[in-house]
Amino acid sequence: MNFKEEMFGRIDRVEEILKEYLPEEKGFQKEVMSAMEYSVMAGGKRVRPLLMEAVYRLFGGKDREIQPFMAAMEMIHTYSLVHDDLPAMDNDEYRRGRKTTHIVYGHAMGILAGDALLNYAYETALKAFDFPNTDTKTIARALQVLAKKAGIYGMVGGQVVDVAMSGKPLDRERLDFIYRLKTGALMEAAMMIGAILAGADTEQVKQIEQAAADIGLAFQIQDDILDVTSTTEILGKPVFSDEKNNKTTYVTFEGLEEAQRQVAELSNGAISVIMEIPGEKEFLCALIKNLIHREK
Amino acid sequence: MNFKEEMFGRIDRVEEILKEYLPEEKGFQKEVMSAMEYSVMAGGKRVRPLLMEAVYRLFGGKDREIQPFMAAMEMIHTYSLVHDDLPAMDNDEYRRGRKTTHIVYGHAMGILAGDALLNYAYETALKAFDFPNTDTKTIARALQVLAKKAGIYGMVGGQVVDVAMSGKPLDRERLDFIYRLKTGALMEAAMMIGAILAGADTEQVKQIEQAAADIGLAFQIQDDILDVTSTTEILGKPVFSDEKNNKTTYVTFEGLEEAQRQVAELSNGAISVIMEIPGEKEFLCALIKNLIHREK
Repeated sequence: MNFKEEMFGRIDRVEEILKEYLPEEKGFQKEVMSAMEYSVMAGGKRVRPLLMEAVYRLFGGKDREIQPFMAAMEMIHTYSLVHDDLPAMDNDEYRRGRKTTHIVYGHAMGILAGDALLNYAYETALKAFDFPNTDTKTIARALQVLAKKAGIYGMVGGQVVDVAMSGKPLDRERLDFIYRLKTGALMEAAMMIGAILAGADTEQVKQIEQAAADIGLAFQIQDDILDVTSTTEILGKPVFSDEKNNKTTYVTFEGLEEAQRQVAELSNGAISVIMEIPGEKEFLCALIKNLIHREK
Repeated sequence: MNFKEEMFGRIDRVEEILKEYLPEEKGFQKEVMSAMEYSVMAGGKRVRPLLMEAVYRLFGGKDREIQPFMAAMEMIHTYSLVHDDLPAMDNDEYRRGRKTTHIVYGHAMGILAGDALLNYAYETALKAFDFPNTDTKTIARALQVLAKKAGIYGMVGGQVVDVAMSGKPLDRERLDFIYRLKTGALMEAAMMIGAILAGADTEQVKQIEQAAADIGLAFQIQDDILDVTSTTEILGKPVFSDEKNNKTTYVTFEGLEEAQRQVAELSNGAISVIMEIPGEKEFLCALIKNLIHREK
């Protein structure tokens, strides 16, 4: 398997699914549909839908009922970016080299487009009930995981603490909390939903949840490491920015060497959990390694 | 039946249900739970849960699986108010005599509390799957109605056009669109979900949807009428405010008399639909009449 080729092929398929599930731009309210499309189709690595589909395949899933969940997952991730970029939050005018949604569509429409995407994520995931031969109880479980991991016990919970602690000294416990919830929770949801929809049992879903949590945390620690080990050329953004912004990171608490050791340990742990599950896992393992041991 | 007494009793029960389903304030993220509670428990007429429960009873519903939906409906209504009050939207510092959420908790937390409430509404409604003996297909249908009527084809769609037309001359078609979606859609969802969960068939749910749409529209037209027929003392806010703000209303297009005739027609039509359904309807009809023919 040529990993890069396989990955770009799969990203293309995710984007096809997103286009299929995004609403048609029509009616008096079509501006919001346009803002939704602008935000969702802004590129990105599509990590969460890729993880979801790869875990679904690992457990032998073969149907299309995963697709509305893949789209919903990316819509939730996107709404969180749209609201994060708002003036009252991070106040960002650019994301991935493009103007942010509220800059293009106005501040009020930025709020509404985020609301619309969050709600439409559920509208989309609920379409899984319309597929023939689906087990409604399984879809219900997947929906419950999606809602829990996106909300106050998941991503929103992490954002709240991140916002509340902004500019204040961060203790180790809260740093852990923010990393695990703000980034980790949606990765957990993605991988758990893949497992649930493919018919994994409760014990297997728990194992996948733990592996996903470790991947999410390793991903974040690697972010902190790159800020002090990479170069501006490779990273595409200034290095040592955390130090300049007085930002407490894993490297601050643990030192560089220990942070690197933890990334390796978390990554190896997650991979070894996956290796024990029979099924197609070559792409999934390569994706996880690529996510964690990335250079930018 | 003493209507007022019955209504206040039922409002108290709705508030008990809301308290039961609101998240416990704990963890590093407890500030957002506090902001959610502050926003949801700010009073109000609880019209949507009341309508939902009354229609549920009309169709013979007797179980508790309606309760998570009643709570979810009010959470969605509340999140829309929290975001509507934001500086980039209506920029309101007070609602029902209390400071708005973003004034008390800060601008960023106002955005996040709204997001949290919308997401938690789904988390809450999904709890209906955990009740014993529930029919999962019925709950799936109710969830689909909730999501559709709250989103871009419902409430958010209405808000988007309202925001886009702010300060611009409004044509009759768009005024109708805003009224039907921004206010009507959640009333439709409330009454449809009550019918669906009680086991109403597709034809009956359609009739209820139409009746609810008419009630929502009549409610809005009555708002326009009161602005020109009431007094500041009775209304508790300045009269003739629409004219002062150059706001186009139903009265602008139709004149006062025709607007009043339409309210009566819409109201009578909705009531007559309900009268044809066998079942307990005394409170529901009184509630609808009270909503539409209110004096403030």
